[in-house]
Amino acid sequence: MIIVKGGVTKALGFLANGLAAGIKKSGKMDLALLYSEVPAAAAAAFTTNAFQASPLKVSRSRISNAMHQAIIVNSGNANCANGASGDKDAALMADYAARSLRLGAKEALVASTGIIGKDLPIGKIKANIPALVAGLSAKGGDRFAEAILTTDTVKKEFAVKLRLGYSTVTIGGACKGVGMIYPNMKVEKHATLLSFLTTDAAISKRMLTEALGEAIEDSFNMVSVDGDMSTNDSCFMLANGLAGNRSIVSKDKYYIDFTDALKFVTSELTKMLARDGEGATKLLEIEVLGAKSKEEAARVARKVSTSNLLKCCIYSADPNWGRVVAASGASGVRFDASRVDVYLGGMKAVSGGRRVKDYDSKKARKRLAQDKVYIKIDLNSGRHKAAAWTCDFSEEYVRINANYST
Amino acid sequence: MIIVKGGVTKALGFLANGLAAGIKKSGKMDLALLYSEVPAAAAAAFTTNAFQASPLKVSRSRISNAMHQAIIVNSGNANCANGASGDKDAALMADYAARSLRLGAKEALVASTGIIGKDLPIGKIKANIPALVAGLSAKGGDRFAEAILTTDTVKKEFAVKLRLGYSTVTIGGACKGVGMIYPNMKVEKHATLLSFLTTDAAISKRMLTEALGEAIEDSFNMVSVDGDMSTNDSCFMLANGLAGNRSIVSKDKYYIDFTDALKFVTSELTKMLARDGEGATKLLEIEVLGAKSKEEAARVARKVSTSNLLKCCIYSADPNWGRVVAASGASGVRFDASRVDVYLGGMKAVSGGRRVKDYDSKKARKRLAQDKVYIKIDLNSGRHKAAAWTCDFSEEYVRINANYST
Repeated sequence: MIIVKGGVTKALGFLANGLAAGIKKSGKMDLALLYSEVPAAAAAAFTTNAFQASPLKVSRSRISNAMHQAIIVNSGNANCANGASGDKDAALMADYAARSLRLGAKEALVASTGIIGKDLPIGKIKANIPALVAGLSAKGGDRFAEAILTTDTVKKEFAVKLRLGYSTVTIGGACKGVGMIYPNMKVEKHATLLSFLTTDAAISKRMLTEALGEAIEDSFNMVSVDGDMSTNDSCFMLANGLAGNRSIVSKDKYYIDFTDALKFVTSELTKMLARDGEGATKLLEIEVLGAKSKEEAARVARKVSTSNLLKCCIYSADPNWGRVVAASGASGVRFDASRVDVYLGGMKAVSGGRRVKDYDSKKARKRLAQDKVYIKIDLNSGRHKAAAWTCDFSEEYVRINANYST
Repeated sequence: MIIVKGGVTKALGFLANGLAAGIKKSGKMDLALLYSEVPAAAAAAFTTNAFQASPLKVSRSRISNAMHQAIIVNSGNANCANGASGDKDAALMADYAARSLRLGAKEALVASTGIIGKDLPIGKIKANIPALVAGLSAKGGDRFAEAILTTDTVKKEFAVKLRLGYSTVTIGGACKGVGMIYPNMKVEKHATLLSFLTTDAAISKRMLTEALGEAIEDSFNMVSVDGDMSTNDSCFMLANGLAGNRSIVSKDKYYIDFTDALKFVTSELTKMLARDGEGATKLLEIEVLGAKSKEEAARVARKVSTSNLLKCCIYSADPNWGRVVAASGASGVRFDASRVDVYLGGMKAVSGGRRVKDYDSKKARKRLAQDKVYIKIDLNSGRHKAAAWTCDFSEEYVRINANYST
């Protein structure tokens, strides 16, 4: 497997575009389209929030279709809590895209991100679809990645190539979401994290769904910016088979290779999300080892990743490992505190539940001043592990979110 | 029932004191003692964090004693993650207090709050106990309330008097804790929230434990400043019987009156905590109605109370009710979103899951600019309700916690 430059249009047969339709007041790009030249197997995951935005209802109802070829996405408006007219607008948005691409209605999926409770400007969207379609291009991945952004400061794209048998397969993706990020998506799974993955691998819809579920569980579902779960989180994947590999229809070695590569792509995209978290200056990776089950490891890692107190410390490079201790114990997972080791920035701070006497706070402070900080918690109670990602917490997060809707 | 001025020494027979023992670098008061002139029934609740500070281990082992007369408390040091020597220091601290008061060792309880992972300066504590005991006074409640504070900006005391049969009974309390506040204490129950309650009512230890459990569940366990659960949260209550009422030994009408008054005291103390949350400018009360069970109502209320995004909005008086919608759906409680009504600052923003068209954002902004903000969520799915309290989220919270240990 090798890392290659590119995103959603790196795999064969995928075209994309993005433009400014006037949904965002800022005049920035806010409407994006992803298109596969041939029918593709699709899998998707949606937020588990009890409030579901209208585009999720539409995409969920359409994902059962055998094949899909397009995903239309807007930023600047979440189309959530808009009642029946919101549902209708989301369906219209997908339908307009499908019609313009000469597809069946169910072959186009839809996603939205932005503010909750404002009417979707469906007129502006409809008016801009012809130009959006006309400008589809194999070089349009960048424009797509840019048009889906809200408070993000950078585009998030990643792609790899791997050998499957005699064929070379490409997996690429783009995502957005730097606030309201604490996803828990379920396949057909949750931020306003929007993530779009493409591959030219041949893989059955069933195996694609399995692979996407596995990948999300260890990546997007393990990222937190603020512990706030969105009504719009969605992850989509299209596989169009143009790489010509023997189709993956069971959990054979090709499935494993494909899934491993997919996990790598989603993990890298996840780190990009965390690093660009609202107000963030650093990426934090929290690894929990020695747990009795993977689920317990993940619960502890996620709890630590959502600690406001810890994130404030990391912002100022304050080696206050007590924040890690308190947060790890708060997850609800029962463990023997007297066996726990904690490492902050690669330095052991707690051994057997007790502080390390010669812990060098000065050296630790230097480690924490770097732009990537590792925290490791070894429960020494089992063989399972998990990792979670987040960012530090700065005054800027408050500033961004104190004035979001104005 | 009437509200009276005072705190832990308002009830008959309770003395208290506080002084500066040099535990805090600032030189502020940091050692406090509460004493009942006669043996008292005691009940306590401790954090459910898997990491437990040493003083909790000591107090938990001693709470089974029939009677107690003293509680010694330090601020500025949590005595947590200090291993066996921390456990020993916590026991010594309680023992020194007991000896100086001529009590049996098990009759004194102990609590600590402050930074994790620093040796407790037991020498300074021992040296100051004689002066602490010598200065015990029925007017010492204020000094006690001050000496238990860490990043709090104000003392938190509250007291009521009520009639039980032919007797007048007093219930008073003091508490601290404005950061790392997301308690979930269990009787014999979690912040570093420390709370101390006293009453001169005659009540059996068993009924006192029941009453405290009921009161905590609807008050301290429903407050959040930052969603971070402490290793040191503790709530203690002493009942010394000096009011001369017929002792409460079953869930009779006196039990109900007593427990209602106690709930009022703990609720008022809880609001004081939230209002003084680190960096807070406003108190937020979140009420959830129409739930299928009280537990579901409480889960939704608590989830909303921990939304960083909502708290940032409230800080700037931004009527972005979408934050309430997203947070309420994220609790894991399943409900029909199309039945939900949301009120922000007393104004209906969402009706039947859908935004209210004529919602007056200008008027809402004025309401949210007040120093107490009400949010009401009616699930319209049942008859149960719950309330939770929190504060808004400002840049100041980040500043306070970015530099806590330095």
